Amino acid sequence: SRSINLAVIPGDGIGQEVVAEGLKVLSAVLPQDVKLETKEYDFGAKRYHATGETLTDADLDALKKHDAILLGAIGDPGVPSGVLERGFLLKLRFAFDHHVNLRPSKLLPGVATPLAGEPQIDFVVVREGTEGPYTGNGGTIRKGTEHEVATEVSVNTAFGVERVVRDAFARAQARPRKKLALIHKNNVLTFAGHLWTNIFNKVAEEFPEVTTEYMHVDAATIYLVTQPERFDVIVTDNLFGDIITDLAAAVSGGIGVAASGNINPSGEFPSMFEPVHGSAPDIAGQGKADPTATVLSVALLLRHLGYEAEAARIDEAVSADLSERTGKPARSTSEIGDALAVRVAG
Amino acid sequence: SRSINLAVIPGDGIGQEVVAEGLKVLSAVLPQDVKLETKEYDFGAKRYHATGETLTDADLDALKKHDAILLGAIGDPGVPSGVLERGFLLKLRFAFDHHVNLRPSKLLPGVATPLAGEPQIDFVVVREGTEGPYTGNGGTIRKGTEHEVATEVSVNTAFGVERVVRDAFARAQARPRKKLALIHKNNVLTFAGHLWTNIFNKVAEEFPEVTTEYMHVDAATIYLVTQPERFDVIVTDNLFGDIITDLAAAVSGGIGVAASGNINPSGEFPSMFEPVHGSAPDIAGQGKADPTATVLSVALLLRHLGYEAEAARIDEAVSADLSERTGKPARSTSEIGDALAVRVAG
Ligand SMILES: CC(C)[C@H](C(=O)O)[C@@H](O)C(=O)O
Ligand SMILES: CC(C)[C@H](C(=O)O)[C@@H](O)C(=O)O
Repeated sequence: SRSINLAVIPGDGIGQEVVAEGLKVLSAVLPQDVKLETKEYDFGAKRYHATGETLTDADLDALKKHDAILLGAIGDPGVPSGVLERGFLLKLRFAFDHHVNLRPSKLLPGVATPLAGEPQIDFVVVREGTEGPYTGNGGTIRKGTEHEVATEVSVNTAFGVERVVRDAFARAQARPRKKLALIHKNNVLTFAGHLWTNIFNKVAEEFPEVTTEYMHVDAATIYLVTQPERFDVIVTDNLFGDIITDLAAAVSGGIGVAASGNINPSGEFPSMFEPVHGSAPDIAGQGKADPTATVLSVALLLRHLGYEAEAARIDEAVSADLSERTGKPARSTSEIGDALAVRVAG
Repeated sequence: SRSINLAVIPGDGIGQEVVAEGLKVLSAVLPQDVKLETKEYDFGAKRYHATGETLTDADLDALKKHDAILLGAIGDPGVPSGVLERGFLLKLRFAFDHHVNLRPSKLLPGVATPLAGEPQIDFVVVREGTEGPYTGNGGTIRKGTEHEVATEVSVNTAFGVERVVRDAFARAQARPRKKLALIHKNNVLTFAGHLWTNIFNKVAEEFPEVTTEYMHVDAATIYLVTQPERFDVIVTDNLFGDIITDLAAAVSGGIGVAASGNINPSGEFPSMFEPVHGSAPDIAGQGKADPTATVLSVALLLRHLGYEAEAARIDEAVSADLSERTGKPARSTSEIGDALAVRVAG
């Protein structure tokens, strides 16, 4: 009989609320014969305040034993900027080698977009997750003085770039439009830019059916708001991916519906799934958060574990729910979760 | 009697066409008693192909003697990516210490925006121009092998950050809304992020009337499309500034109307003014390019040299011209230039 052994990290702020709904929908969608075990972990601001810990080696050992991780949101205004991000979120992405950061953007019917007209948006960003300016390389000298110098080093390796580029080509190949765009800034960041561009062009030869294009990151932001239909699959570095996926989320219905997967394709370590949004302390605890992004992250999780039919049922339930929202009064976090649970079960 | 000794660099592609119109409007707006001298320089792809040179020490010495520089666009698909950007554009910005890269975004009445509704957009981005990931620091080892490693180093100094932050505060102080946003990614790029944030907070104490906020660059892209009215003055690093000013241009009427100044506020070296758009080889030589961004760059140039009334006349002429475009047939580059020249002269 099949089973899923899931690590659940609700985290801070609205993380608690949205994860509860994600789990509700997960339980509802799974067939009877699949045994779902969950274990909750208390990472985030509360634990940091109580113990000073963000993520210990023992924590990593415990997390390693799970099939996958569902994360709500991490971050709190009471914790200095960077402590939880570097000490928990990024530490976990690096420790578990989550090199494929998958972020689909699809504007579903009936969903509001800040763009005029009726843009067609359906693309997926494959963001590199373990290199670039995210490695924590760099430093500061003469801190706090008028002679301070601070550096940040973006580290890019052929190994790291090739595996994510290859993953993106395979995804493009599997989609009807078979298009892949590389986004970088190779006219300025020429060292990293050449590495990315050369590997992209080399791997392209193995995928003759995939149509490719290159685009500078600045130009890409223009296309994302003027011609978003242009994109099918995008592959890009960690920082550019961070920036353009927030923009992509904004134009395709907002971060309330943007899901993401931090994937280790080899399965050596568990992959982690999380909404793109943060902990939103301003609305935490009020039942106002939209759990849709977390529910869609559960779909990505199921797909990753091989439950394609169940993932598709969630996607369909979300589409149906979103298409019926217009003109209706706002629902609470758990009302939306309930409605989605009913749909996926039915 | 007054005089302006201007270096003119038409550059590549549509650069030639738009600069001609910029000069036409400049001549038309200047009072009789101002002697305008211009000297044209042939930098860009053609010179590079002929001589292999992008910008020599002798070129820099010649350019130094001018009061200001008007640039069209540099870049050509026949030149490897990065050669002209690093070898000319960035070399000049660094050599002349253009640390204030000024990019206003204003959605003028009657101008189309990809955003729905009627957004109010009127802000200016102060982008740092001589540091960050643009310094060319970094390198490659084992190039072309499967063990290649490429690095890019972002260099940030207290000296460089403080002067541009101070410039931005002064600009915010002089504007009616007196708001300044710092955009960075200080939760991930913690070394540079702390430097920027600390200096921003320190200088803020000297400007108690200015309302400040901090925003991560990824979140900023969301606000730029969902709440652009939120922004008044933005200060940010070289790379984030590059990215968000293209997005800002896209939402506020397109890069056809986006102007920029590469400013050395001390006046030690001439400042350079250029449209944000590139050389657009696909439409070059066809009279299709909109010279408005160049004309608005001429207004920034005049304002920088102290010709405030003339700069304002250009801004008004452009507003009037743009507001009357809807429903009219498209005009050629020189027709738009002619119309603007007539307006500023009248
Ligand atoms: C919170 C932060 C570290 C994170 C990132 O920059 O990757 C977030 O913005 C994201 O996109 O998941
Ligand atoms: C062409 C390129 C070097 C340049 C930059 O990145 O600064 C351009 O994009 C700009 O914004 O002026």
